[in-house]
Amino acid sequence: MHIDIISVVPDLLASPFSHSILKRAEDKGIATVRTHNLRDYATGKQKQVDDYAFGGGAGMVMMIEPIARCIESLRKDREYDEIIYMTPDGEKFDQGMANSLSLKKNLLILCGHYKGVDERVREKFITKEISIGDFVLSGGEIAAAVVADAVIRLIPGVLNDETSALTDSFQDDLLAPPVYTRPSEYEGMKVPDVLLSGHEARINEWRFEASVRRTRERRPDLMEKSDSHTEDSESKNN
Amino acid sequence: MHIDIISVVPDLLASPFSHSILKRAEDKGIATVRTHNLRDYATGKQKQVDDYAFGGGAGMVMMIEPIARCIESLRKDREYDEIIYMTPDGEKFDQGMANSLSLKKNLLILCGHYKGVDERVREKFITKEISIGDFVLSGGEIAAAVVADAVIRLIPGVLNDETSALTDSFQDDLLAPPVYTRPSEYEGMKVPDVLLSGHEARINEWRFEASVRRTRERRPDLMEKSDSHTEDSESKNN
Repeated sequence: MHIDIISVVPDLLASPFSHSILKRAEDKGIATVRTHNLRDYATGKQKQVDDYAFGGGAGMVMMIEPIARCIESLRKDREYDEIIYMTPDGEKFDQGMANSLSLKKNLLILCGHYKGVDERVREKFITKEISIGDFVLSGGEIAAAVVADAVIRLIPGVLNDETSALTDSFQDDLLAPPVYTRPSEYEGMKVPDVLLSGHEARINEWRFEASVRRTRERRPDLMEKSDSHTEDSESKNN
Repeated sequence: MHIDIISVVPDLLASPFSHSILKRAEDKGIATVRTHNLRDYATGKQKQVDDYAFGGGAGMVMMIEPIARCIESLRKDREYDEIIYMTPDGEKFDQGMANSLSLKKNLLILCGHYKGVDERVREKFITKEISIGDFVLSGGEIAAAVVADAVIRLIPGVLNDETSALTDSFQDDLLAPPVYTRPSEYEGMKVPDVLLSGHEARINEWRFEASVRRTRERRPDLMEKSDSHTEDSESKNN
């Protein structure tokens, strides 16, 4: 997979992409992420990429011309499966979307900054608008890092242990169960006995029940999906 | 405001906190963010901070002892309003939570990595568990950067123009209207006439209607709140 990211502050993304999972994916040749400085596509002495909003009001708006020039230049090198704009009014990012994007080959992500991009950019170039949640960030950069991380870690070979991602929260519409590691007792707080029993079937049962209980307590909205899944798997067993 | 962040890969967060809004907040002395390497609080030659999960299964679990040592050390320097754990099964982060956290003085954010932290850490130390959305990241670091950015930009004095944050999406349960900047025509695509009219009342009306229309199309779930707000403001006008 290849991800290009267009930003007015590409340096902001330097460290997330040079550490941990994303670095490992790059080192293994599984995924590459490249940031592109929008300012390199600006014309004029000032390298201007934003301007006041028509109609007045606070906040600067990113101009269409440098963005168009940047996208058109990148498009010469590869065909993109999606040209994504990170925006609070986009489609909500979730694990399902991460799964689906992890199957793509080339993604282009445009990060808004300031008040966002000229609306005509969205009409002309953008094929998918993504929001990571109902909150506003100072730019789309950290949101793009969220998407890149969530997507790239799902590509086979990136995580050391393939099953690790499969047992994550949301992959089965259940939250993950509590986890424990050494020491088995810390200041009087003990690890549940069953996890020390070595009895795999009982451990699995305990984990499933803990997942269901946690999901019911914290995210009852996920339970409806989960109930229908349980019915599915029951009917498969019959 | 002061934010301490505990991580096993603190370098991952170097660039987001040294650019844009967060750097500006730091330069102005309004907010400081410090990352702390959990490994500095590990004992033993290996500086071990994680271990296999009791009960088996894929993925490593962050141990309680280094985390306890780190939190207790940081607590000597200041009292925290919240000790936050970033986790997919936490309370959903939204603009309301960002507003509320922006009023706090000292926050401590623990980033999970691998399979997460030993459950006893959550029971013993954590006062608030936050999820930025229904997806799984390789660690809590980028999620912590999301929270820090969303919160810090709301502190008065951080943004150059105070009203800029107030007109963001979600602050009034409406999505922001489309924005445009120069040129007024690009490859046949024109800016709506009203925005060029200079007629402030008409521009405001157009923007409000565009916000409502966009919210109805994209996020009808926000409209219920918005409807009640509209009624509120109508009754205030009467």
